[in-house]
Amino acid sequence: MSFDPLAHEIGSLADILSASALLAWDMRTMMPSGGTATRGEQMATLAQLARQHLLSDQMARALETAAAADLPPDSIERRSIDAVQAAIVHHRRLPEQLTHRRNLLKAPAQAAWAQARARDDFMLFAPLLQQTIELAREQAEALGYEDHPHDALLGQFEPGATWRTLAPIFGTLRTELKPLLAQVRAAPSPPGLPAGPYPISSQQLVGRKFAAWFGYDFDRGRLDPTVHPFELAMSRSDVRITARYNEAIADIGLKATMHETGHGLYEQGIDPALTRTALNIDLIGLSAMGGASLGVHESQSRLWENHVGRSLPFWTRAYPELQAAFPALAEISLDAFYRSFNAVRPGLIRTEADELSYDFHIMLRTELERALIDGSLRVEDLPAAWNEAMRRELDIVVDSDANGVLQDIHWSMGQFGSFCSYTVGNVLAAQVWSTVATEPVKAAIAAGDFAPLRLALTEKIYRHGRRYHPAELVRLATGQPLNPAPYVGYLQNKYRALYGLG
Amino acid sequence: MSFDPLAHEIGSLADILSASALLAWDMRTMMPSGGTATRGEQMATLAQLARQHLLSDQMARALETAAAADLPPDSIERRSIDAVQAAIVHHRRLPEQLTHRRNLLKAPAQAAWAQARARDDFMLFAPLLQQTIELAREQAEALGYEDHPHDALLGQFEPGATWRTLAPIFGTLRTELKPLLAQVRAAPSPPGLPAGPYPISSQQLVGRKFAAWFGYDFDRGRLDPTVHPFELAMSRSDVRITARYNEAIADIGLKATMHETGHGLYEQGIDPALTRTALNIDLIGLSAMGGASLGVHESQSRLWENHVGRSLPFWTRAYPELQAAFPALAEISLDAFYRSFNAVRPGLIRTEADELSYDFHIMLRTELERALIDGSLRVEDLPAAWNEAMRRELDIVVDSDANGVLQDIHWSMGQFGSFCSYTVGNVLAAQVWSTVATEPVKAAIAAGDFAPLRLALTEKIYRHGRRYHPAELVRLATGQPLNPAPYVGYLQNKYRALYGLG
Repeated sequence: MSFDPLAHEIGSLADILSASALLAWDMRTMMPSGGTATRGEQMATLAQLARQHLLSDQMARALETAAAADLPPDSIERRSIDAVQAAIVHHRRLPEQLTHRRNLLKAPAQAAWAQARARDDFMLFAPLLQQTIELAREQAEALGYEDHPHDALLGQFEPGATWRTLAPIFGTLRTELKPLLAQVRAAPSPPGLPAGPYPISSQQLVGRKFAAWFGYDFDRGRLDPTVHPFELAMSRSDVRITARYNEAIADIGLKATMHETGHGLYEQGIDPALTRTALNIDLIGLSAMGGASLGVHESQSRLWENHVGRSLPFWTRAYPELQAAFPALAEISLDAFYRSFNAVRPGLIRTEADELSYDFHIMLRTELERALIDGSLRVEDLPAAWNEAMRRELDIVVDSDANGVLQDIHWSMGQFGSFCSYTVGNVLAAQVWSTVATEPVKAAIAAGDFAPLRLALTEKIYRHGRRYHPAELVRLATGQPLNPAPYVGYLQNKYRALYGLG
Repeated sequence: MSFDPLAHEIGSLADILSASALLAWDMRTMMPSGGTATRGEQMATLAQLARQHLLSDQMARALETAAAADLPPDSIERRSIDAVQAAIVHHRRLPEQLTHRRNLLKAPAQAAWAQARARDDFMLFAPLLQQTIELAREQAEALGYEDHPHDALLGQFEPGATWRTLAPIFGTLRTELKPLLAQVRAAPSPPGLPAGPYPISSQQLVGRKFAAWFGYDFDRGRLDPTVHPFELAMSRSDVRITARYNEAIADIGLKATMHETGHGLYEQGIDPALTRTALNIDLIGLSAMGGASLGVHESQSRLWENHVGRSLPFWTRAYPELQAAFPALAEISLDAFYRSFNAVRPGLIRTEADELSYDFHIMLRTELERALIDGSLRVEDLPAAWNEAMRRELDIVVDSDANGVLQDIHWSMGQFGSFCSYTVGNVLAAQVWSTVATEPVKAAIAAGDFAPLRLALTEKIYRHGRRYHPAELVRLATGQPLNPAPYVGYLQNKYRALYGLG
C-alpha cells in the first residue's frame, strides 16, 4: 500500500548512479590509459539506463501507488515522491535524442578542447563549441524558462535559482569587493614561501592527517592523487576524495585536500536513513551526489578550505605539524606563512585564485556564457570578449587562450550554467560559518578539535541530504535567504587586517 | 537490415557487465570497508539489469532482425546470434525469483562461512550451506540435465562438458599421478628457502617486472595487491590483475603474479574486433569474462605460472634478478632455488598446493559436491567426508575444519560445479604447451624473450575470445580433443628428474 515498490525502484536507480560514480572515479584515478577506449560507452550506457529506469512504466506505477498512500507532508516518503515526480517532468521534457546527441558530442568536444588548449589554438575548439552551444540552447528551450534560456540550464545545478535571484548578489559582490581588491593590490605584497622541495609523499601524509583531523572517516572514504581534484560518493559509506600536488609549491595540495575534505564530510554526514532513497541522489543531474545542490556542496568545501583551513586559529595549531613535515619551512614564522597562504595575487587561472579575486572569475564566465547561450556573443568573438572581461574585472592581460578562454573543461562537457554555483558556494559558506562558528566552536578549533564544528554542520546541513530545496535549506540552516553580507564582511575584515588597511 | 540493432543491444549489455566487473574489482582492491554496506545491492542491481536486458523485448526484436540477415556461417555476427540465442534459452529456464533468492542468500551465506572459518565451527555455516545447496539443486532442475544434476551446474562454467566427458580424464590422472606422488614423497625432500624477509615492495617490483617481461601491457592493465588474487577485465583494453604477498615467503607472491598475468595476457590478447560483441562476454555467467570457459582461462594462467614460471630455462635467465632483489637468496644456488620452488609438499590448502597434489584437491571437491547436489551426502556429514577424502587422496590428516572443508569460498557463493575447471585448466595447459613450445619458442624463453610464446598463444587461443565453444577451440588449437597424456607426461618427466627417480 504502499511506498515499498517506489522505494525498490529508487533503490535500483541509486545503485545505477553509484556504479556510474565508480566508473567516473576510476577513470580519473585508477584506470589504465587504454581504458579510455571503452569507458565512454560504459558511462553513456549507464546514463541511458538511469534515465530509462526513471521514466519506466514500473517507476510510474510505483509512483502512483505511493502517491495514493497517506504520508505525513514532511516525511522522507512524501519528499521522495515529490522529487521523483519533478525529475520525471524534467526528463520527459528532454527528448532522448537530444540527450543522446549531447552525450555523443562530449568525447569529441573534450578531445578538441584538450588539443586546442595544448596547442593554444582556440579555432581547433570553436566548431565543436559552436555545436555544444546549439545543443545547450535546444536543451534550454526544451526545459523552458521565464526570462532567459541560461536560467533553464543553471536551474539544473541550483534548483530554484535564476539570474533574477542571483544578479543582486553578484552585484553586491562587485560593488563591495572591487574597491577592496584595488586597495589590497596597492598595498605591499607578502613574501612568498621558499621554493621547496615539498616532497609529494609528505604532502600526502599531511593531507591525510588534516582530513582525518577534520573528521573525514577513512573507513568510509579514500583520498587519492589525480589531475583535477574532485569528490565523488557511491553512498555515504563510500566517499572518494582526491587532490593534486606540486612538489615546488606547499599550498596547492593542502588547499585541494581541505577543499575536497569539505565535500567528503558533507556526503559522509548524510543521514543513513536516506541511503538508497531519492533524497541523496541527484535525480535531475542523474548522479549519486547527495548534497542539496552544487552551490550548497561548494559552500561546505569552501567553509572547510577557507573559513577553517586559511584561518589563523587553525594554523596556530597546525603549523608546527607542517614545519615538521617540511624542513624548508623551518625558518618561516607562523605569521609569514599565514600571510603567504592568504596572499592576494590575482592571476589568469580560476582554480588557483585567491579569495578576493575568485568571484570575478565567476562573474566573467557567467556573463559570457549567458551571452553565448542567448546568441548575443558569437563563438568567434569569444576569446576577445574573454580577454576584455579579464582586463575589466581583474585588470589582467591574458597572455594566451590556453591560460584564458580555454582553461576550464566545463563548456567542452556541455556544462553551461554551473559556474554561478561556485560563487553561491562562497557566499553561503560565509553565511553558514557566521551561524555555526560560535565561541565554543572556534575555541575547539583553536585547540585542534573539529568535532563541534562538524556536528553543527551535520545538524544544519549534512544530514538532510537533498531532503530540502536549496532555498529551504539555507533558510532552515541560517534563518534567512542567501545573503552576501556575511561573505563581504568576512573578506573585508580578514583582508583589511592582513594588509593593514584603514 | 541488419545486425546493427543487435550489435547495439549487445554493446549495452557488455557495458553493464563491464561496470559490474569494476564494482567487483574495486570491492576487492580499493573500496573502503564501509562500502560493504551498499556494494552488495549495487552488484545485485546490475546483475538484474543485465539479465533483464538480455531477456528484453528490444533484444528479442534485434535478434529476430539479425537472424534474418544473410551472414556467413562462421562470421562474428552469426556466432554472436548463436551465443545470444543460447543465452536467452538458458536464462529463460532460470526463474527470476530463483536467481533473486540466490543473490539474496550470497551475502548472509558468505558472512556465515567467514565466521565459521574464523571460529573453526562448521555448524555456524551448515544451515546456510543447506539452503545454498537446495537452491543449486533447484537451479540444476530448472536448467535440465541428462545424467546428473551436477552436470547442469558445471556446464555453466565449461560449456559442453559433463561428468561423462570429464570422468575418464580424472580417472587417468588418479591412476597415473597417485604412484608418482607416492614415489616423490618417499624420496628426500629438497631444503626450503631462507625465511626472508622478502620485503613486499621488492616482491611487487619483481612481480611487475616479470609480468611486463611476459608481455602484460600496463597501458591496458593494472596489478594491485589483494587478499585472494584474481583477474577481472572490463575490456581487452582495461584488464586488472592482483596478487597477494607474504613477507616471510618468497614464492607465494611470484606464483600468484605469474598465474594472474597468464589470465591477463589472455584477455589483453583478444581480437579488438570482438570488443563490445557477444564473443568476449560470458552471456551464461553474465560476466565480462572474455575467455572461452573457466577451464580454458585457467589453462592460460597455469601455462604461464607452471610451464614457464616454474621451469628451469626461465629461472636460469630470471634468477639473478630475484637474487638482486632479495639479499636473502644471495647464497642459494639456482639449482637449490629451482628445486625448492618446485618442491612437492602435499598439504591442507588447495591454493598452496604443488603441481603433483593439486588435482587431488579438485577430485575430492568434485566428488563431494556431486554427492551434496544429488543428496547422497548430507551437510552434517560433510566435514567427516572431507577429512576421510583428504586421508584417502593425499594421506593427510585434517587438523581443523577451517583448514579443511571451510577453506574455499566457492560454495558459500552458491558456486557449485566450477572446481573441475581447475583440473581442466591443468590438463589443457600441458596440451597447449606441447603444441606451442617449439624449439625456437623455448630458445627465446631461455633468452628472456617471451614474445614468440605469447604470439603463438594469441594466434591459437587468445584472439578468439569466446568465438568457439571450448571443445572446438581445443581441437583448433591442439588438433585433438582434451587429452590428459601431455599433462601426465609433463609431470612424470619433470618430477622424476627433480627427485632423481628411476
